Amino acid sequence: MSSELLPVLRERWSPRAFDPAHHLSDQDADVLLEAARWAPSAGNSQPWAFHVARRNTPEWRALTEHLAGSSRPWASQASALVVNLSHVYVEDTDWEFSEFSIYDLGQAVAHMTIQAHSMGLSCRQFRAFDKDAVGRLLEVPPHWDVVTMTAIGRAPSEAERGPRASQRETAIAWPRS
Amino acid sequence: MSSELLPVLRERWSPRAFDPAHHLSDQDADVLLEAARWAPSAGNSQPWAFHVARRNTPEWRALTEHLAGSSRPWASQASALVVNLSHVYVEDTDWEFSEFSIYDLGQAVAHMTIQAHSMGLSCRQFRAFDKDAVGRLLEVPPHWDVVTMTAIGRAPSEAERGPRASQRETAIAWPRS
Repeated sequence: MSSELLPVLRERWSPRAFDPAHHLSDQDADVLLEAARWAPSAGNSQPWAFHVARRNTPEWRALTEHLAGSSRPWASQASALVVNLSHVYVEDTDWEFSEFSIYDLGQAVAHMTIQAHSMGLSCRQFRAFDKDAVGRLLEVPPHWDVVTMTAIGRAPSEAERGPRASQRETAIAWPRS
Repeated sequence: MSSELLPVLRERWSPRAFDPAHHLSDQDADVLLEAARWAPSAGNSQPWAFHVARRNTPEWRALTEHLAGSSRPWASQASALVVNLSHVYVEDTDWEFSEFSIYDLGQAVAHMTIQAHSMGLSCRQFRAFDKDAVGRLLEVPPHWDVVTMTAIGRAPSEAERGPRASQRETAIAWPRS
């Protein structure tokens, strides 16, 4: 039996442009969150939270004020901005909530990204925003941390996009001496 | 248009038992690594590496010596153990290689896990092993870090497994005050 790379993994890409006419429905937003929720995590600790702001809502406007100049042009075209948060400490302590909070957040965001691709949507994760300002805006308590944002929307067609950076040149197997 | 959670995301689970008669082919191992390779990463930095040891090879035997008592019974039944490594520092410096090394490793492992499920295989990620000993065994240089292992193999059938822990009770949307 021969196995092939899942098309949803091979075809996923991170656009730098989104269709500003596309609207993300309530139902689609729910399915994206559901995909993240089903990700594996250490001891099923689920050390993640997501804040979804859809384009042209008041909270989206507040969020876009904190985007860097490098991300605003394309991120503000996306149908939604999702703030990805990690559960870093046990509340009111300096005890680590989980050794794998950031790693597991990565897994959950990957699930959301793959789900989005299966729905004809695309994601670009980014860090080009004022993290402290976003934390204040969302009233993030000290035991949680804003890690990244994901811009989610409808990307330009394949024909319109530039070449994808190859993943082929990186050593994947551990180089033994 | 209604969207549904991808079956490969909903049906994935992390078994604690593997079929010790199942053999992972070279080709299947390659596809699993390929899936990880296509994961997104900050600036396409791909801050990950994977070391695959298939059951009953000499390197697998060396690796299993460093499993904790809690993981050995089921992890040593799996068809392969994959050591998941993160590129932490720029070589010969104390400069962080990427702010997102651990987060992106999580994304790559999630891709591998999802690919495995699509091939009829299952994964359980774990940390119950002697990390320093594994690092010495694999001659991991100081700018890389052993983060987790993944046991990959054929899981018992649905009928044989216990109930899956529900993911339903965790707040997913950020709780605003």
